Amino acid sequence: MLTTSVNAAEKVLARCQTLARFSEDREGTRRTFLSPPMHDCHREVSQWLAEVGVSTRVDAAGNLRGIYPGATPDAPRLLMGSHLDTVPNAGAYDGILGVTLAVALLEGLEGRRLPFAIEVVGLSEEEGVRFGRPFIGSRALVGRLDDELLDCRDAQGISVRRALEDFGLPVNEIPQARLDADVLSYLEFHIEQGPVLEDLGFALGAVEAIAGQSRLEFTFAGRANHAGTTPMHLRHDALAGAAEWIVAVEKAAEVAAGASKGLVATVGVLDVKPGAVNCIPGQARLSLDVRHASDEVRENAVKDLVQRAQEIAQRRELRLSSKMLLDQRAVAMDTFFVAQIAEAMRKVGCAPHRMVSGAGHDAMILAEQVPAAMIFLRTPGGVSHDPSETVRAGDITKAIACGMQLLEQLAGSREFLTRTRRA
Amino acid sequence: MLTTSVNAAEKVLARCQTLARFSEDREGTRRTFLSPPMHDCHREVSQWLAEVGVSTRVDAAGNLRGIYPGATPDAPRLLMGSHLDTVPNAGAYDGILGVTLAVALLEGLEGRRLPFAIEVVGLSEEEGVRFGRPFIGSRALVGRLDDELLDCRDAQGISVRRALEDFGLPVNEIPQARLDADVLSYLEFHIEQGPVLEDLGFALGAVEAIAGQSRLEFTFAGRANHAGTTPMHLRHDALAGAAEWIVAVEKAAEVAAGASKGLVATVGVLDVKPGAVNCIPGQARLSLDVRHASDEVRENAVKDLVQRAQEIAQRRELRLSSKMLLDQRAVAMDTFFVAQIAEAMRKVGCAPHRMVSGAGHDAMILAEQVPAAMIFLRTPGGVSHDPSETVRAGDITKAIACGMQLLEQLAGSREFLTRTRRA
Repeated sequence: MLTTSVNAAEKVLARCQTLARFSEDREGTRRTFLSPPMHDCHREVSQWLAEVGVSTRVDAAGNLRGIYPGATPDAPRLLMGSHLDTVPNAGAYDGILGVTLAVALLEGLEGRRLPFAIEVVGLSEEEGVRFGRPFIGSRALVGRLDDELLDCRDAQGISVRRALEDFGLPVNEIPQARLDADVLSYLEFHIEQGPVLEDLGFALGAVEAIAGQSRLEFTFAGRANHAGTTPMHLRHDALAGAAEWIVAVEKAAEVAAGASKGLVATVGVLDVKPGAVNCIPGQARLSLDVRHASDEVRENAVKDLVQRAQEIAQRRELRLSSKMLLDQRAVAMDTFFVAQIAEAMRKVGCAPHRMVSGAGHDAMILAEQVPAAMIFLRTPGGVSHDPSETVRAGDITKAIACGMQLLEQLAGSREFLTRTRRA
Repeated sequence: MLTTSVNAAEKVLARCQTLARFSEDREGTRRTFLSPPMHDCHREVSQWLAEVGVSTRVDAAGNLRGIYPGATPDAPRLLMGSHLDTVPNAGAYDGILGVTLAVALLEGLEGRRLPFAIEVVGLSEEEGVRFGRPFIGSRALVGRLDDELLDCRDAQGISVRRALEDFGLPVNEIPQARLDADVLSYLEFHIEQGPVLEDLGFALGAVEAIAGQSRLEFTFAGRANHAGTTPMHLRHDALAGAAEWIVAVEKAAEVAAGASKGLVATVGVLDVKPGAVNCIPGQARLSLDVRHASDEVRENAVKDLVQRAQEIAQRRELRLSSKMLLDQRAVAMDTFFVAQIAEAMRKVGCAPHRMVSGAGHDAMILAEQVPAAMIFLRTPGGVSHDPSETVRAGDITKAIACGMQLLEQLAGSREFLTRTRRA
């Protein structure tokens, strides 16, 4: 059993690395939505699935799908997978790992039939690279690939609709890509893409929520002046005000992170005008990104930070403007499913660590219609969206063991088998 | 007398506005070193000088020069003027005002001969726009327009040497542009380009020193990470470190400005990488500009700010690098000359306010070889290098009165007439 698992883990790693070679770029991995190498990717994954008797199809939204049958023809279905698209200059595991692990679990079943079918899904688009709009694949599964999204255009002026047609897909069949009513749950393995599990020394984490997210833009405006001729007491330095606020953002987030576990607040963009060595900055434009599993905690944090910015601007006689760019609610994962995952983790000797995902994932979209949950794998150095992204073979072995244990549990769970799809 | 002065002031304003029309750009004023409109500018100024019997020449460095004779053929000379070049989108007074005021003073003499000659100089280059190197005109006067500078190229690849030739100037005669040994002093009227005189309610200021200046570049390097997946306590946010330091720079400068009157410290440039809303900044590159009349005060302030940056970087586990881009010593104006100016200000009913120039001026270069001093005129709103730059007619009236009074004093000063050029 152990030897098999180790081999299985090596196979998963090798498969991820194989898919990484299907790239739009000569150097590095870049496989955006419906790009030519996605055909190669589909062919390769289909071949692995064919080896366990699963035939695949590509739905009208470009998602690769294949069903491993259950014990009876009318058995309900567990959906399992992740996305097959990548960012530019990507690593080999983001998204891909969730698909290869789903294949590995089917292989682990060695032909055994469960009281539910398992549909493996390789989602077509999650990163939002080509059209600036993420989750196109999973949106189709919940019926949200609508005309507005179909009309979005990429940098070459090609619409989503046209890109689907060019890939050979029947756009008029998008409604049929929706999940059937017999889907019980969605399970997604994914690399954590953060440093938390590594810091705690854990291989796996059960994701119990995907954090809500606020994005805002702030502009402090003062008076641009000569850095040599304007004494300190006659300045209205927009950058000095912005800097005071950045320090306050960090402090407030650290304090809140203690009280409201997991709050993060980040200033990632800062543009200064005029931006010359000998000019006092007249304008500083900044971004703010705040995330937390509780919408209330997040909204209060944003309110507090806006107020601090106002106080600073007022005291310094600066003008302040701010606008909300994104206000995305937190998404809870399915309580029963998360508990089952935690139990499976414990049974295979992993700490049953529960955590919040600070990043968005397809599971967030699918959770609109089916109970969903995710299992995170430790990401060395927290490094992702980079060719140096890695996963440890030992952690993959644990993920497979946990997945197999979970399938056993679900197969024996009356509660699982009788649950129906959310409204 | 009052009526005459008011008319004289209006004439000075009108002349500045006339010169502002000689521009490389169809809209706005832009008259860089040796650009075609500089010919028009020279012709116009020469005509004004011709009306007071002064014939002009353009020296080999492009400076317009004309001598108003003294009472005797061997009378020593007072040099008076400023620069005729402008920044892009310039105002009408920066530099120009010092030349038109010199002309106005000659007109005020109404043909009277003084025991010294007055050489009016319209310097060819001060702003450093075309070649990125300021003070080309005044450098020629002190013998520092050397081969290295002559070989500098502008954005079109044209060297200073070639530009001089294209303007019709004999480059081999540059050595003859040097000041003769009989130059007693250099006097420059200039707009303050800062808010200090306006804030104090004074029309004029006697410049007693031009501040020394340090320019440095700092880079804080941390670790770029996902803003959603990296908890606050596992971050190494380069921008948060930089922001803490910017706040410290401002505070230190304010404290020092109290103790060491006039210290200014400015962070004018800040670039953040990767610079995305959802990325923790991995790098922040900043500029620092520190100025003070005392080199010791300035150098200590820089040392202190470098140390604070190091402390912040160390505490936050960031890497810090810094490099000195400019380390320019303060230049004292001539004590005797400044006292004479203050006395003249007092005599014409102005507060004899002494001040430090935070910006560099030609007087700083000429002070290497002749006793130099400057008289600043109040700049409404401190606004300069902008078409909205203005000067009040009433302040020009006071400047002319002060200048005439100064000429009277100098004409009667044995100390002034017997001083020789510095070594």
